[in-house]
Amino acid sequence: MSIAQPVWQHPKPMGDDPALRVYNSLTRTKAEFVPRYGKLVKWYNCGPTVYDSSHMGHARNYVTQDILRRIVVDYFGYDVHFVMNITDIDDKIILAARKQHLHQRKRNSLQSLTKDLINEIRGAWTLFFRSEFAKCLPKDYAVVEGDEFHSWLYIVGKVQDTDWKAGCVRRSEKFDMQFKALMQTDSGLKSAEVALAAGNCSLQEAIELVDTSRDVYSFALDEKYKAEVTDHSIFNSMARHWESSFFHDMTRLRVRPPDTLTRVTEYVPEIVAFVQRIVDNGYAYVVDGSVYFDTRAFDSADGHAYAKLQPGSKGDRKLLEDGEGALSKDNVKRYGADFALWKASKPGEPFWPSPWGSGRPGWHIECSVMASEILGDNMDIHSGGVDLAFPHHDNELAQSEAYHNCGQWVNYFLHTGHLHIEGLKMSKSLKNFITIDDILKKYTARQLRLAFLTQQWNAKMDFTESLMTGEVRNIETTLNNFFTTVKAVLQVSSEKATPAGQHQYGHLEHELEAFFHQTQMAFRAALCDSFNTPLAIDVVLKLVSRVNVYLGAKGNTVNGRLVDSSARWVGKMLRIFGLGEGEGDEIGWGEERSDQASLKRDDLVMPYLRALSSFRDGVRRLAIAQEPDAFQRILALSDQLRDNDLVPLGVALDDQEDGKALVKLVDAEQLIRARDEKKALANVKAAKKAATIEAERQKKLQRLEKGRTPPYEMFKPPHVPGGTYCSWDDVGMPLTDGQGNQLSKNAGKKLQKEYLAQEKAHQEYVLWQNSLSKGQ
Amino acid sequence: MSIAQPVWQHPKPMGDDPALRVYNSLTRTKAEFVPRYGKLVKWYNCGPTVYDSSHMGHARNYVTQDILRRIVVDYFGYDVHFVMNITDIDDKIILAARKQHLHQRKRNSLQSLTKDLINEIRGAWTLFFRSEFAKCLPKDYAVVEGDEFHSWLYIVGKVQDTDWKAGCVRRSEKFDMQFKALMQTDSGLKSAEVALAAGNCSLQEAIELVDTSRDVYSFALDEKYKAEVTDHSIFNSMARHWESSFFHDMTRLRVRPPDTLTRVTEYVPEIVAFVQRIVDNGYAYVVDGSVYFDTRAFDSADGHAYAKLQPGSKGDRKLLEDGEGALSKDNVKRYGADFALWKASKPGEPFWPSPWGSGRPGWHIECSVMASEILGDNMDIHSGGVDLAFPHHDNELAQSEAYHNCGQWVNYFLHTGHLHIEGLKMSKSLKNFITIDDILKKYTARQLRLAFLTQQWNAKMDFTESLMTGEVRNIETTLNNFFTTVKAVLQVSSEKATPAGQHQYGHLEHELEAFFHQTQMAFRAALCDSFNTPLAIDVVLKLVSRVNVYLGAKGNTVNGRLVDSSARWVGKMLRIFGLGEGEGDEIGWGEERSDQASLKRDDLVMPYLRALSSFRDGVRRLAIAQEPDAFQRILALSDQLRDNDLVPLGVALDDQEDGKALVKLVDAEQLIRARDEKKALANVKAAKKAATIEAERQKKLQRLEKGRTPPYEMFKPPHVPGGTYCSWDDVGMPLTDGQGNQLSKNAGKKLQKEYLAQEKAHQEYVLWQNSLSKGQ
Repeated sequence: MSIAQPVWQHPKPMGDDPALRVYNSLTRTKAEFVPRYGKLVKWYNCGPTVYDSSHMGHARNYVTQDILRRIVVDYFGYDVHFVMNITDIDDKIILAARKQHLHQRKRNSLQSLTKDLINEIRGAWTLFFRSEFAKCLPKDYAVVEGDEFHSWLYIVGKVQDTDWKAGCVRRSEKFDMQFKALMQTDSGLKSAEVALAAGNCSLQEAIELVDTSRDVYSFALDEKYKAEVTDHSIFNSMARHWESSFFHDMTRLRVRPPDTLTRVTEYVPEIVAFVQRIVDNGYAYVVDGSVYFDTRAFDSADGHAYAKLQPGSKGDRKLLEDGEGALSKDNVKRYGADFALWKASKPGEPFWPSPWGSGRPGWHIECSVMASEILGDNMDIHSGGVDLAFPHHDNELAQSEAYHNCGQWVNYFLHTGHLHIEGLKMSKSLKNFITIDDILKKYTARQLRLAFLTQQWNAKMDFTESLMTGEVRNIETTLNNFFTTVKAVLQVSSEKATPAGQHQYGHLEHELEAFFHQTQMAFRAALCDSFNTPLAIDVVLKLVSRVNVYLGAKGNTVNGRLVDSSARWVGKMLRIFGLGEGEGDEIGWGEERSDQASLKRDDLVMPYLRALSSFRDGVRRLAIAQEPDAFQRILALSDQLRDNDLVPLGVALDDQEDGKALVKLVDAEQLIRARDEKKALANVKAAKKAATIEAERQKKLQRLEKGRTPPYEMFKPPHVPGGTYCSWDDVGMPLTDGQGNQLSKNAGKKLQKEYLAQEKAHQEYVLWQNSLSKGQ
Repeated sequence: MSIAQPVWQHPKPMGDDPALRVYNSLTRTKAEFVPRYGKLVKWYNCGPTVYDSSHMGHARNYVTQDILRRIVVDYFGYDVHFVMNITDIDDKIILAARKQHLHQRKRNSLQSLTKDLINEIRGAWTLFFRSEFAKCLPKDYAVVEGDEFHSWLYIVGKVQDTDWKAGCVRRSEKFDMQFKALMQTDSGLKSAEVALAAGNCSLQEAIELVDTSRDVYSFALDEKYKAEVTDHSIFNSMARHWESSFFHDMTRLRVRPPDTLTRVTEYVPEIVAFVQRIVDNGYAYVVDGSVYFDTRAFDSADGHAYAKLQPGSKGDRKLLEDGEGALSKDNVKRYGADFALWKASKPGEPFWPSPWGSGRPGWHIECSVMASEILGDNMDIHSGGVDLAFPHHDNELAQSEAYHNCGQWVNYFLHTGHLHIEGLKMSKSLKNFITIDDILKKYTARQLRLAFLTQQWNAKMDFTESLMTGEVRNIETTLNNFFTTVKAVLQVSSEKATPAGQHQYGHLEHELEAFFHQTQMAFRAALCDSFNTPLAIDVVLKLVSRVNVYLGAKGNTVNGRLVDSSARWVGKMLRIFGLGEGEGDEIGWGEERSDQASLKRDDLVMPYLRALSSFRDGVRRLAIAQEPDAFQRILALSDQLRDNDLVPLGVALDDQEDGKALVKLVDAEQLIRARDEKKALANVKAAKKAATIEAERQKKLQRLEKGRTPPYEMFKPPHVPGGTYCSWDDVGMPLTDGQGNQLSKNAGKKLQKEYLAQEKAHQEYVLWQNSLSKGQ
């Protein structure tokens, strides 16, 4: 057609489309998020050091980062490359692995409780006291030479000021518990002393002593034998164990795995090369086989700045020391703020070759190297717990910028906030230390995630019982009720035209629709405002409440499609937060499933098939063997299938008269309860019946027993007292009484009757006896 | 801390982040998509007129729009308000409902085949011929008064030029079939005439006549009785029936339901008010109770333009007439391009009150009214099939802009392309008309959707067998294989550290990672380019192929996480297209499920439990009855369970030596195939064996049969020819030959030998005969 179309006006947006702004630790302000390459986001997240169980601190950190990642990917539609490391070389791992190894070695070598062992443990405690308390001994106290152990025991026992103790002791994690054991008489050292004094030198006592003193003893063992631990696999297998435990916990918490996973042990050659370049660039120096970062040289160089995240912490010795690790107390650095890039390995530490001799990577260098290896000389987001900001992340930035000679290696640094438990820092000594395994016994992964969502991701969070049982449970219940109600309403209303031919889109529907769209906008605004999930959740709940009001107002004339759309949107948003399961389109957020989660056909069907197959196996075996009682045993198998095997699977087989059982899928617990009750009732009945039978048997026995005496002996002693009668006839009937007088006719008759009765009873008795001997 | 952080540089994007551009029918160009209110998209989609089964044209249209909607929502992250109408007042519905009703009424009133009925049907044909052919009768032909019916039959039969017929007849849908029936002798009119002549006037014959002439007859019935159809529910129930059938088909095609559904019957008062305002605004006029849109007045008004979408079609009478409907042939409009907003209802048409008298809405007005009711005076997107562009959408735009007095009611008009079948327009007369129900018997919803995805949404599409069995099957297989392979590889590789402590992120991984990110960008660019799904699918397939190459190159040292991420992304994108099922996080796109979809525990588990229970029933029955062959029958049952009952459920029971079967869940079809092949093989073997046995049996029979003759008769006639011997001894041994000569010694010996052999054979024969008679 040659006729032109009229002019079209390009629409002008009426409102603002908010952009995503994120709180950036590098500026401590919110800034618009601009990735470097279109929609591709390069993201590095600090992973765990794997030497123990993951705890609530990990849960908060990794679930929160998972939430941010899901929002960025599933809500904002970015393509994210999410990299995470596993720190599997570290002072903590080395120490833990060595101690565990040496303790186990000792334990395996024990044979009995000995005086030497007790002295060794005393020595361990002495060593521990000396190393922890010597530096801060109150002035009124002094250690007596010769019996240092008891002297320390006295002092530590006396000084009840726990602050003093806390201030002194670099608490080993289970120290409190062990110290308590030390002071008690019923276990540990004292108990062992008592046992030995009493001559009990069993292996068991020895093992108990070693185990109750584990931390202190393994500390001493490590001091003495660490150099003997040279096998890398000792460190490696500990790391692998806890890494796998960490990911198991993450799966249970529905945290998505990273797109790329890097382990320090796999990147040592790259680390060496990286350190070499920093040395070459003039930002590091070598001392005795170790390499240190030269913070002053870096900080004063053009275009570089040290401690970008926390410039105020630059000189913080405590933080720096913590960052250097427990095994590095050497003082060969040029400047206090300098830190190790490469540590010369001491005996008992794993080591790799390097231009500076055998050694191992410092802590901070790994992230610089692995992130650079995967993401290159710049990344959009780096995330981690706020406790890592200084010195770890500041050192990491310095290293990477020293290596790449760039001014901004990370564009946005996102730090998740601290976690407190009931107002206090979580720590083992405060007895509020909670592992992920613990917490998942108490709350579901969904409840935990909801708890984290109700908090701003970068704020300190107080994890409390009242939060979980109050706010979180309320939100969960509200949402569950909402989905249930909506589904029920939709079932009833469905999409039939009203008989009156009137549409169901009036005033109330327009209002609800408008509220729904405002909610969508508010939700977006909340997430754009640095992932404000507490507000976003709140906005969702307001919509839920509004829909509930609408449902109440409209009864069975609701506009189904409108309610359906709102509910689907709510479910979709919850799913974006990682709260829900089920498909993107369904109403609801799925039932929370147990650990293993995936409802695959295989998983679901196999238990039933195994029951079927093993029943068939049993039946075939019997049919092939054709033993005499095979039929009974086949019937027993089929009862067992019904009562034992299928009941826990939630299958009820109801046998019918016609031989065709009804199959029902029901709640397993209910079924188990019903079966057990039935069984119990049957047992009671059977017991009663058995009791009755036994009573009757006893009665019969008594009766039969009466016939034991033959009639011809019944009137003779010992069956009657001697002297009752004087003479008897051939068959044993009394003729005269005790006085020799003839018996009266009446008396004779009575005895005759008794005689006849006994004769009959005795016959029965004899028959019974015969039957018994035959039975044997 | 008072120490300030160093200056931070806001990142500058390195590449372009492409914006979504869509092909807009209002400009016939691609323009950047800008919604009016932030991320909220108001979208109106033209729904179906519900008077028959949905067909492939609907499938293409609604699945394609569903794809666009899913991309906008799930990929681009817009909040979409998707409104769709159901046209349940329309000339087509009125006609279909009336005809169906009148035909059914007639059918119900039949009692026997009568001359009157035959005449009535002849009359119907005459009417039909007259109305269709009279206007284009070839000049050599004329209709003979008096016997118009046969005269028409002669003409139509003679003129074999089908083009002529096609040009004349406004084909009723099943006309061809009926006309064929009319010309045949074994059914329809001729058959009825024969039957009546032969005295067969059964009700069955009458019903068959009425049914085979259904379309033509109901056309005549409608002409005669339409005014008697006054009950609205007749129209309504037909609409409801086909509406529900439509949504059932949509669900099967995995098309998401609209957020708001509007039905014309529910918006009549709103339509009346809308029309009134257009009249008031001076853009419509009333004639005889009908209201017409004044296209000239509108077109010439400032800021308005008529036929924005197809200005070239403004005067197209054919298109205009089609738009006005079959029931509106009145010529009272001021101008040819004008169209009805409100139609005065004629007898036999549903009607509603209006200021202009009883009437019903025109076709185009409904969308203007309902879209305005829900979305207001502007919308972002209007979509529909391209065949609706003129006059329907152009009229809709004119109406709405006349009502709102605005210049641009719709910002983006998206028209989905036509569908052809094997190069031809789909039509019932071409025998290539395919309903959704038909096509879903042949292909899955996923295959259909894949077919649509391989086509640009707004281009004409040719739906061919070769597309489905070639390209589409290939894509599906490629993707299925990909997911299966990746899952298997991940199972094996898992995330264990390599023993050597080397990372698995070298050259090949960097390359694959880069390719993966380029794919993500290319995919985004494709969708931004007016939803270029063919390109997007292509891009995904290239990644799949690249991952496959990587897997081949790396063997069991693949980087699992990288492969996992790529595969998850592929699955997620397929799911966004509506191709997949399963959760957002899992690898794969789910198994395609049958109609009812929901994977409930009950549905899944019950078939297995039924197999289990019925096996147990059988075994118990046998064990209780204790018949002699019970064990064999139990074993037969257990074979039957394995071979017959579990095979179609995809369960393989492999019986093992130790009597414990292995249970495997496998593909049912594969299992059935394997079992049948095994069975066939066994049958062949058994047949061979049976043949051998039979042959041996025959041989044995022959041998035995030889012994039938007792030895003492064997040398007498008829066993030897008369005259062979002359005399015999007592036991039948020949003494003399035929000439009466004594037999030679040698001859005697030979006969003796034969005699003895026959004696033995006869003994065997007798034994065999005895055994046979006992056996009987």
